[in-house]
Amino acid sequence: MSLLTVGTMAFDAIETPFGKVDKIIGGAATFIALTASYFTRPVFLVSVVGEDFPQETLDEFSRRGIDLAGVEMRKGEESFFWKGKYHNDLNTRDTLETRLNVLATFNPVLPEAFREPDVVMLGNLTPSVQASVVKQFRRRPKLIVMDTMNFWMDVALNELVETIKLVDVLTINDEEARQLSGEYSLRRAANKILTMGPKFLVIKKGEHGALLFHENQAFFAPALPLEDVFDPTGAGDTFAGGFCGYLDAVGDFSYESMKNAVVYGSTMAGFCVEKFGPQRLFELNEKDVSRRLQKYLDLSFYRPNISVF
Amino acid sequence: MSLLTVGTMAFDAIETPFGKVDKIIGGAATFIALTASYFTRPVFLVSVVGEDFPQETLDEFSRRGIDLAGVEMRKGEESFFWKGKYHNDLNTRDTLETRLNVLATFNPVLPEAFREPDVVMLGNLTPSVQASVVKQFRRRPKLIVMDTMNFWMDVALNELVETIKLVDVLTINDEEARQLSGEYSLRRAANKILTMGPKFLVIKKGEHGALLFHENQAFFAPALPLEDVFDPTGAGDTFAGGFCGYLDAVGDFSYESMKNAVVYGSTMAGFCVEKFGPQRLFELNEKDVSRRLQKYLDLSFYRPNISVF
Repeated sequence: MSLLTVGTMAFDAIETPFGKVDKIIGGAATFIALTASYFTRPVFLVSVVGEDFPQETLDEFSRRGIDLAGVEMRKGEESFFWKGKYHNDLNTRDTLETRLNVLATFNPVLPEAFREPDVVMLGNLTPSVQASVVKQFRRRPKLIVMDTMNFWMDVALNELVETIKLVDVLTINDEEARQLSGEYSLRRAANKILTMGPKFLVIKKGEHGALLFHENQAFFAPALPLEDVFDPTGAGDTFAGGFCGYLDAVGDFSYESMKNAVVYGSTMAGFCVEKFGPQRLFELNEKDVSRRLQKYLDLSFYRPNISVF
Repeated sequence: MSLLTVGTMAFDAIETPFGKVDKIIGGAATFIALTASYFTRPVFLVSVVGEDFPQETLDEFSRRGIDLAGVEMRKGEESFFWKGKYHNDLNTRDTLETRLNVLATFNPVLPEAFREPDVVMLGNLTPSVQASVVKQFRRRPKLIVMDTMNFWMDVALNELVETIKLVDVLTINDEEARQLSGEYSLRRAANKILTMGPKFLVIKKGEHGALLFHENQAFFAPALPLEDVFDPTGAGDTFAGGFCGYLDAVGDFSYESMKNAVVYGSTMAGFCVEKFGPQRLFELNEKDVSRRLQKYLDLSFYRPNISVF
């Protein structure tokens, strides 16, 4: 199987209550591709970087089975830059600075070898750019997953709604689900969004876990309570990388399989927040993931006693 | 087995984004006893009310196996009154008015028949009053569960810490756990609180579910995403009623049994929020509870595929 992802590769400056970094690798596609590479190969990466993006990071990506033929490198230009500061509760943040740089004119053209992927993860981007990628495939991928954010609901709602029609799974957070649907109840919000195109909806709730909706079914995956949470940046993208990476690895896109994918996504996101940026995602091995997954299972499994009445 | 609960019985005036009521039955012990009565009998109720508390509600309690011999009825006085308004997200609220009335001089004296309960649920009250109840038991109950709130951490921390030492299970919300421990991470907060006396800690997170901590283990029970949420008042007490009611019914106070208790607590709390005050808790039958529990199991159960690596 093969997984394609499109999204930003960037530099981030991040301040959290636990510290700050002035310049660290970031961007949705960075987190997605890196996480997915633990599950499946090849990972086709579509993005754009400036001349300043470190070659050693790109080399490390290649070693992990990430195909960089779709990463446009612009000489003499700078990579996308984002600077943000998290509030004390880590659940909200302010964007202090955004320099689009190379991203301003990003118009991805897929290499021939990228045009028949099995699973596609559209990282958060202008909806029309996400749609333009879908239109370049030679055949319909088996699964298209799309992430987006409230910003596009504010400034490009029509485009967003058109792009959502093209995908099988939409991943957004709880506030975005409320904004997109106009419904406060997440169950009602999901019912509405599931009429807009996607057959599956994942609502990400950060430290409060993630919900998967399909028809009138719902599945919930908690987030493991962690001793150390340093930086939530990229956690949603890491979730997406684990989710899609798992699905591409098993090739089963049923609701039951999606439940596992949500669990793997949550597990990987738990690693992400333990250090700044994607650092933690560079140092994991299979044992770390298995051990964490076992903790996850301990957290949510029990032998139900439903015979009390 | 037998369950004893002590706490307020009150009138509430409640405003939520979905409506308002000027006077409805409320109080921690009302929600706890009513919910527990679905699981176990007798439920010994210890509280105080004024002459204004409706006799038909008391009669209904008696019909449900709730023993009111410990409810002091004060002639010529009024019941405790609370008025609050919920914010748009329903997760925060302002107290607009509190009239202690009969509660100001509440000094419970347990009837003889109440002094050997198996399970005790100390509803949110002045910690010294909670402690005075524990001191009246002829033998140590098999399980003592205690609820409290941030108010007592602000104004009576020493008393609170002394009372916490007497109990087996403490139930508080996430912000309270952070305040009591001085730790942001709930895992670290739990580690600290579990050195303060209780062997089990339940952290209630409202619509985000509940966490059970014991030694270095953790179990999470999600809240079912509901179509209609009208009023969160009493949801925490309803949780406590289901939690203790279940445990008293099965007589098993192991960690595995507590997991079931958390699930039953969450399930019952889900009913509570669907109407104002405890209304919904008066109309349930066993089928409603079983059906809701099945939905709960669908939400959190799956067949793990941990062989992807």
